[in-house]
Amino acid sequence: MAAVAAAGAAGIWKTSGRLADGREIIYFDESAGTGRAGAADPRDLSGDGGRGPGELRQDALTGDWIAVAAQRQARTFLPGPDSCPLCPSRPGRPTEIPAQSYDVAVLENRFPALPAGAGRCEVVCFTAQHDASFATLARRRVATVLFAWADRTAELGRAAGIEHVYCFENRGEEVGVTLHHPHGQVYALPYVPPRTRQLIASARSHRARAGANLFDDLVTAELADGRRIIGGNDHWTAFVPVAARWPFEVMLFPAQRVPDLAALGAAAAAAFAPVYLDVLRRLDALFGVPMPYLACWQQAPVRDRAARAEHALHLQVLAVRRAPGRLKYLAGTESGAGVWSNDVVPETAAQLLRDAG
Amino acid sequence: MAAVAAAGAAGIWKTSGRLADGREIIYFDESAGTGRAGAADPRDLSGDGGRGPGELRQDALTGDWIAVAAQRQARTFLPGPDSCPLCPSRPGRPTEIPAQSYDVAVLENRFPALPAGAGRCEVVCFTAQHDASFATLARRRVATVLFAWADRTAELGRAAGIEHVYCFENRGEEVGVTLHHPHGQVYALPYVPPRTRQLIASARSHRARAGANLFDDLVTAELADGRRIIGGNDHWTAFVPVAARWPFEVMLFPAQRVPDLAALGAAAAAAFAPVYLDVLRRLDALFGVPMPYLACWQQAPVRDRAARAEHALHLQVLAVRRAPGRLKYLAGTESGAGVWSNDVVPETAAQLLRDAG
Repeated sequence: MAAVAAAGAAGIWKTSGRLADGREIIYFDESAGTGRAGAADPRDLSGDGGRGPGELRQDALTGDWIAVAAQRQARTFLPGPDSCPLCPSRPGRPTEIPAQSYDVAVLENRFPALPAGAGRCEVVCFTAQHDASFATLARRRVATVLFAWADRTAELGRAAGIEHVYCFENRGEEVGVTLHHPHGQVYALPYVPPRTRQLIASARSHRARAGANLFDDLVTAELADGRRIIGGNDHWTAFVPVAARWPFEVMLFPAQRVPDLAALGAAAAAAFAPVYLDVLRRLDALFGVPMPYLACWQQAPVRDRAARAEHALHLQVLAVRRAPGRLKYLAGTESGAGVWSNDVVPETAAQLLRDAG
Repeated sequence: MAAVAAAGAAGIWKTSGRLADGREIIYFDESAGTGRAGAADPRDLSGDGGRGPGELRQDALTGDWIAVAAQRQARTFLPGPDSCPLCPSRPGRPTEIPAQSYDVAVLENRFPALPAGAGRCEVVCFTAQHDASFATLARRRVATVLFAWADRTAELGRAAGIEHVYCFENRGEEVGVTLHHPHGQVYALPYVPPRTRQLIASARSHRARAGANLFDDLVTAELADGRRIIGGNDHWTAFVPVAARWPFEVMLFPAQRVPDLAALGAAAAAAFAPVYLDVLRRLDALFGVPMPYLACWQQAPVRDRAARAEHALHLQVLAVRRAPGRLKYLAGTESGAGVWSNDVVPETAAQLLRDAG
């Protein structure tokens, strides 16, 4: 229950406490002296089976690591607003957040996908407002969320055995969200994820072939072409990639290449909110219903210096609705073979997004 | 409309005709002299936009090829039994199948994902019975379907520009199926799919390290362990892989390693039906409702001789229901990073499947 550090820089105050079962909860407050980290968690979680042992198994056919997490079968599934575990606690109804309100709260997942001792899974609550969404956050709040993700990247990245910190948001029941309360996640991984390994290998090949950085060249080419650009400012560019896999896929790159959120400069961090909120609002406006999406921060490994020098932080937004009432599914082609097709031409997707909202 | 060849071997007769727009339709009949390939297609498909140009784009970040197939947005979506395009034609209601009945029919997809001149997409109708499923097919019919897939693998694999033939079935609306009529598909691809490339790379590493074949060693280890075996006979072994990604994932390997279905011996082909039907019936029995799955034939590339010598044909069944009313979704972890977790322990999955049915 002990309140700990204070950040203060950028007008964000960080304090940390413990939940009843010892899990850490961290508040990122937009004002000083809230005392939230001192709020006691009155629950008895001693019989909680959420944090079972689990294990990581390596798939001999691919080299990939698979977390076996049977305890997650019991996880909370689409609770209503009256039983949401990510809303602040109220008298008589204690939740995962002991405080009576919060700005941004980060806590260790009660039902982690990764086994104890092999990484850490955190939940990042974007707001105390149950019915909000990332797209409706104020710009300042977006900056606070970004600060929290950067903080977790830096802190978890320093922990023994961690090779990568993956920050992301799943939005919408259509992509399997089990809690409606606006939240993202952080996985501190004991291995470098397959996509990251692939991006680094591609960047190395490109460097050897072209003598330049792959990501820099990609963004330069998109800006020069222009047909798939959907937004941006001096610090960020948002575009539909030329070989998009998803019906509405958007990448956001900072103008100055950095390996991860922890390395992002203050000016770029401050300039992110208007560009990203504009993208999200266009996605929601596209079909007049909330767009289900996966928002994935592609970051460099935390230790591999050569990889960090080539990898470029970017946000990849994978929107899965291809038309009103129609979703993109990963079926036998994608899931079984990695064979992708996209029913929406990327230039058309970009035009529709520019026209939306 | 011209009927063509006859196979006759194995009690299967193959004839071929043309649909109104020139697409090929091939019948695999279990009796001689049906004359089905001679049935005329009376439809006027001249205004059909299904076969738009499309294109393949290479993703610079991964090297993967993405098919852009805007014309597929117009494809038929969950028609009722009265308007099913894969049922046989009836007087006054012509369908994609001009014949009044059929055993197994293969036709070029009206809405192909691959662009013209860069591969071919075929639909494989397993039965004229609209409400059947693969699990309810007779053993003889399973053999006919397997014969058809092997025939397509051999014939399409000989075509100029084709590097790989991928045969699969998507089953269930939950995995995005847009036609309920029992059917599978064939993609003749102008490139080797990412998963196949990965399997070959793993097999080469294993050969260099262990001096043996990766797939042989995998099956031997599963048989020796035994905990994840769920079925088999002298010619096939069915098991849940030790590092399964999906809640109920089953692999079926022939006892004698072959690169693809075209190379499968007659005895192994005949012995497939009882093992696979048993697996499918157990999957359907598991939760008392039809199990949505992707059934993916992992085949070797058609031209690369070194790869064909190492790659082992196997069928991978990816079942996506993890509990009654609960599906496995590919969310930010899987789709964004290739980070997998499985909520069902593979040994438990195997036990549940052994106990089912």
